[in-house]
Amino acid sequence: MPELRKDPIIGRWVIISTERGKRPSDFTFVEEKKKGGFCPFCYGNEDKTPPEIFAIRPDNSPRDKPGWTLRVVPNKYPALRIEGQLNRQGAGIYDFMNGIGAHEVIIETPEHFKELATLDIPAVRDVFWVFRERMRDLKQDVRLKYAMIFKNHGMSAGASLEHSHSQLIATPILPKRVIEEISGAKTYFDFKERCIFCDIIRQEIKDDIRVIYEEDYFIAIEPFAPRFPFETWILPKEHQSHYEAIPDNLLEHLAVTMKTVLGKINAALNNPPYNFVIHTSPMQEQPLEHYHWHIELMPKLTRIAGFEWGTGFYINPTSPEDAAQYLKKINI
Amino acid sequence: MPELRKDPIIGRWVIISTERGKRPSDFTFVEEKKKGGFCPFCYGNEDKTPPEIFAIRPDNSPRDKPGWTLRVVPNKYPALRIEGQLNRQGAGIYDFMNGIGAHEVIIETPEHFKELATLDIPAVRDVFWVFRERMRDLKQDVRLKYAMIFKNHGMSAGASLEHSHSQLIATPILPKRVIEEISGAKTYFDFKERCIFCDIIRQEIKDDIRVIYEEDYFIAIEPFAPRFPFETWILPKEHQSHYEAIPDNLLEHLAVTMKTVLGKINAALNNPPYNFVIHTSPMQEQPLEHYHWHIELMPKLTRIAGFEWGTGFYINPTSPEDAAQYLKKINI
Repeated sequence: MPELRKDPIIGRWVIISTERGKRPSDFTFVEEKKKGGFCPFCYGNEDKTPPEIFAIRPDNSPRDKPGWTLRVVPNKYPALRIEGQLNRQGAGIYDFMNGIGAHEVIIETPEHFKELATLDIPAVRDVFWVFRERMRDLKQDVRLKYAMIFKNHGMSAGASLEHSHSQLIATPILPKRVIEEISGAKTYFDFKERCIFCDIIRQEIKDDIRVIYEEDYFIAIEPFAPRFPFETWILPKEHQSHYEAIPDNLLEHLAVTMKTVLGKINAALNNPPYNFVIHTSPMQEQPLEHYHWHIELMPKLTRIAGFEWGTGFYINPTSPEDAAQYLKKINI
Repeated sequence: MPELRKDPIIGRWVIISTERGKRPSDFTFVEEKKKGGFCPFCYGNEDKTPPEIFAIRPDNSPRDKPGWTLRVVPNKYPALRIEGQLNRQGAGIYDFMNGIGAHEVIIETPEHFKELATLDIPAVRDVFWVFRERMRDLKQDVRLKYAMIFKNHGMSAGASLEHSHSQLIATPILPKRVIEEISGAKTYFDFKERCIFCDIIRQEIKDDIRVIYEEDYFIAIEPFAPRFPFETWILPKEHQSHYEAIPDNLLEHLAVTMKTVLGKINAALNNPPYNFVIHTSPMQEQPLEHYHWHIELMPKLTRIAGFEWGTGFYINPTSPEDAAQYLKKINI
């Protein structure tokens, strides 16, 4: 019998269609081998990107030259721009404003054939560190309400360049999905006086059927009502609402957790394309008792069809308990 | 300058990133040619689907045999099943219930190489007629709160069989996206005492920059804040909240409008994969003054990446005004 499950935070129902039950080997996607060739993110091509915003340069090499280990540049085709006025206005019943914001690219390594999953721990730690530093910097621009950090890995997951990178988009409005998630968490908090994410962590540790990895500071789980097969969430075990507040000593733990999760997913599913997004609190808000930052990672194994677009209602052919069982037993 | 636009109904912001401005010829997708071969939806293979729920048989041929012009069967791998009890229950902080509902497939034609866009008007009319009849029938099961009718055309839009078909999924809960859309429309109605969709139709006819087709009873527009390039909405010009209330005389007009819209999109974009979804009111509700059924059609030209999943926030590289200009001038 298929099962309908409700995401406890956002109130979204998903169909866990176990009769279509899919095991890791049932998913067919094209594994993408990197082709190489000219790449604007490789050493020597620094002038093919806009001038760098930030870089880690252990050898003190000059700006926009080789020598960096991690580099942040504006997106060459930015979805939003930092210069200008918002000019919020109406046109009849419609509302619009100028596309003010920031759109940055984090080039995670100079090595074209490396991935986040194959970088060493200090390099992955640097990626998570620079996410924090860029958010702290952008937070000073009070026009910017939200910073979304995300990674598209693989062309079919939306990456337009194969060199390993992630992106940051800061927006002058709160995205709808963010408002919904925070307001769902707030409703729960108002009723229970507890953070729903903290409650989820407690219940998942107790049930131990959807946990795939746990260490001192982080836990990785398959959520109860996942939209996609092998959807995985990484949460800090201690309550914290804002990603940019992550203390130095947790960065390495987060790097270990992410690398472990990606290693398990790559081993189980043969290096699928994936997306991850850091879900965090609005930048201009004080610390929130009811919201808890976390990372949502989605291997791109299924196509999204009309039903999902029309309804916000997902059909998932793999139960999270089955997915967790596969991923948990893989040792990285 | 990129522009941020707000969908007036659901409150979703989209980025219209005109600097990436894409013309129809800039989209590259694989045009899918049908391969033929064995097909469970072709004449003679009626026993390869579950027994038919309904069929149009002009020659009075027997059930589950050739002779039909349109056939409705249960999905062989249903996401939901009609038999059983809901058994809504909790598990700690989580909620779930049995996957009760209906999942039907509407085989639109016996001809394997025909499409909705290439069927003649009476055959397209039959498709829209059968959508109505199936909804009227399922409505009698009061456990079912919503019926979603949708079409996935092309493998990359989620179709698993190439023979032209659409689907109906009836659910025992209201999908979140439906609740949001109806509640957005209600908020507008409470303030203005007018249907927001009726207001949109009036403003679009007056502005005449996003209309691509208009006839006596239907209008096709590019919405003000589209998520996707060439996203197109078809609306009845007279207010009506429930699709299943569509009168007989409008069915042919809807068929003409859909065929015209698909013809324009196929000509402009070289037969792209697409999805459409009928947005309608909950089945068990009385007629609503504040909601207006319509069809949302999305050619599948761009990949959805991490940013969109994480935020419900879309980057669209083609403005709806540009898209409308292309589509309007194509004569079908």
